[in-house]
Amino acid sequence: MNNRIGKQTICFKTPISIVNSAAVGGKEESEGPLGKYFDRIFPDPFLGEDSWERAESRLQFNAVNTLLEKSKLSASDIDMMFGGDLINQCTSSYFSARDLKIPLYGIYGACSTMAEALHLGSMAIGGGFANNVVAVTSSHFCSSEKQFRFPLEYGGQRPPTSQWTVTASGAVLLAPSGGECEITHITTGKIVDMGISDASNMGAAMAPSAVDTLKAHFSDTGFSPSDYDLIVTGDLGVLGKTLLCELMDRENIDISPYYDDCGCMIYDIESQDKHCGGSGCGCSASVFSAYLLELLKKRKITRLLFMPTGALMSPLTCQQGENIAGIAHAVRIVAKGAEV
Amino acid sequence: MNNRIGKQTICFKTPISIVNSAAVGGKEESEGPLGKYFDRIFPDPFLGEDSWERAESRLQFNAVNTLLEKSKLSASDIDMMFGGDLINQCTSSYFSARDLKIPLYGIYGACSTMAEALHLGSMAIGGGFANNVVAVTSSHFCSSEKQFRFPLEYGGQRPPTSQWTVTASGAVLLAPSGGECEITHITTGKIVDMGISDASNMGAAMAPSAVDTLKAHFSDTGFSPSDYDLIVTGDLGVLGKTLLCELMDRENIDISPYYDDCGCMIYDIESQDKHCGGSGCGCSASVFSAYLLELLKKRKITRLLFMPTGALMSPLTCQQGENIAGIAHAVRIVAKGAEV
Repeated sequence: MNNRIGKQTICFKTPISIVNSAAVGGKEESEGPLGKYFDRIFPDPFLGEDSWERAESRLQFNAVNTLLEKSKLSASDIDMMFGGDLINQCTSSYFSARDLKIPLYGIYGACSTMAEALHLGSMAIGGGFANNVVAVTSSHFCSSEKQFRFPLEYGGQRPPTSQWTVTASGAVLLAPSGGECEITHITTGKIVDMGISDASNMGAAMAPSAVDTLKAHFSDTGFSPSDYDLIVTGDLGVLGKTLLCELMDRENIDISPYYDDCGCMIYDIESQDKHCGGSGCGCSASVFSAYLLELLKKRKITRLLFMPTGALMSPLTCQQGENIAGIAHAVRIVAKGAEV
Repeated sequence: MNNRIGKQTICFKTPISIVNSAAVGGKEESEGPLGKYFDRIFPDPFLGEDSWERAESRLQFNAVNTLLEKSKLSASDIDMMFGGDLINQCTSSYFSARDLKIPLYGIYGACSTMAEALHLGSMAIGGGFANNVVAVTSSHFCSSEKQFRFPLEYGGQRPPTSQWTVTASGAVLLAPSGGECEITHITTGKIVDMGISDASNMGAAMAPSAVDTLKAHFSDTGFSPSDYDLIVTGDLGVLGKTLLCELMDRENIDISPYYDDCGCMIYDIESQDKHCGGSGCGCSASVFSAYLLELLKKRKITRLLFMPTGALMSPLTCQQGENIAGIAHAVRIVAKGAEV
């Protein structure tokens, strides 16, 4: 069991290579500070389809297709894909995998799904079970609002703590070698429930799980925040980001010099009027695929801790008075060959 | 990449051990032919809770707890759990994992979820990434009917092709060694869409995907049906079972002497008035955990191909006129040390 360190962490004896990535997004995402890093922008929120759900499925299909094109691979070269989304029964992922004809393992981790896909994909590669693995997730503002909150036509007012579901998809190609970035460690999250039950305050619901996973990661690996150039959660948003720093301070761990959050990075929150920032599986997936991996490739950073967080709830569980629990999975990624 | 054979199959150099299993079910399941194999029966469909969804979560919690008791392990001994269910946002699994405090990877594969959990758990063990892994899924007749079809109070008439969602949960403990049954091969399924759109005819929707995965399994491994004592799908039901045999006949592969289906096994279909038989993640999970592994342990069979099938749809995609696609993942399990 020499790949396992501590209680929740896997250290890959041979790091997993991130060979390539692709990100596609909508108009709002193109207008944010990271817009220029996206591979493809779809100004039409329907992507030529007749429902928001089909539109989201096309987002994911296009992200994977763009990834394959960039990688000069065809769908039949992919051994397996790990895909998920926020839509009931993960239909966006399944319908896009159907059209791509790639063997799929459907996963659900709310907004932590991209981390889960990277974890499972890394284990598949690291165990010698696959040569080419795709990790992909998506979200769409309109399909999510409709499903989790109100129909768009209702024009419901958004509370100040609310976040804006990102219309985007990110896809990553993992392989035993060949990329400029490498996954060296993964820390599996536990579910943390601190009694939050406000579905418009996801940041508060998820921050405690981020604390839990960060503590486990540092404890298991012996790393400290200064061993990273960047620690990025996705997507606690403005409020959750502040909460995480405060909660970590109570643990006497100061992450603030190295810390940012995908939900705070993807939009110009003030001018784009996004309240507490971005959210949704597609938020951390696209920020990671479009921007964070670019920082590593360009050696602007060499050591990244990527930790998407998920809020575990459904409209039904909220109506039934259940708390919203959180989960966060961490992925350590380094620039290949850098002194780390 | 010496663990991979053919296009879709993994052959574990060191087989993965199935150390233990547990199955819990409801009253109807206890009255079926496999009732006596269940570890625990809950005559109250609410399990003391106040909603069907909470009841399902308790089913899963109790399956895992029973598994831990039987294995003389505590929750903290489990490195990771792969869990899923049919309920929106997989809340039954997440809420049960929250109470168990076990690191969770949430998965969604409709009724194929138990196979997916066994696949991913086997890769985690086989790669040296975990010592103890739990694979668990559940379904509940009342939570599923409410979500996918009609409120129970409505008393809707069930068409003859309909199946009955099983109220049960099955949990399996995987480890590098220590059990009497071993997973030697897994074949990852592709999504197959043959244009079925009737949500009350899941068997027809899923049978083509079972054909696809069976063909891939036989082609990748060189095995033929006679290399198995039992090939068990879950849960095509009466109609889907007949369809699968017919479709395989067209491929000149006769599986009928070795073949059965979890949906046809769990109930006495005639006397229990279950139309086309059982369905739901909990069907194949509980038949496998309660009965099929027992057959292997007792050496009544030594070579099993377990292949749960999933129907990929949601009430919304059906309303939007989407087809119901299918997926099937196959798991080859042998009695340890038997001549196979």
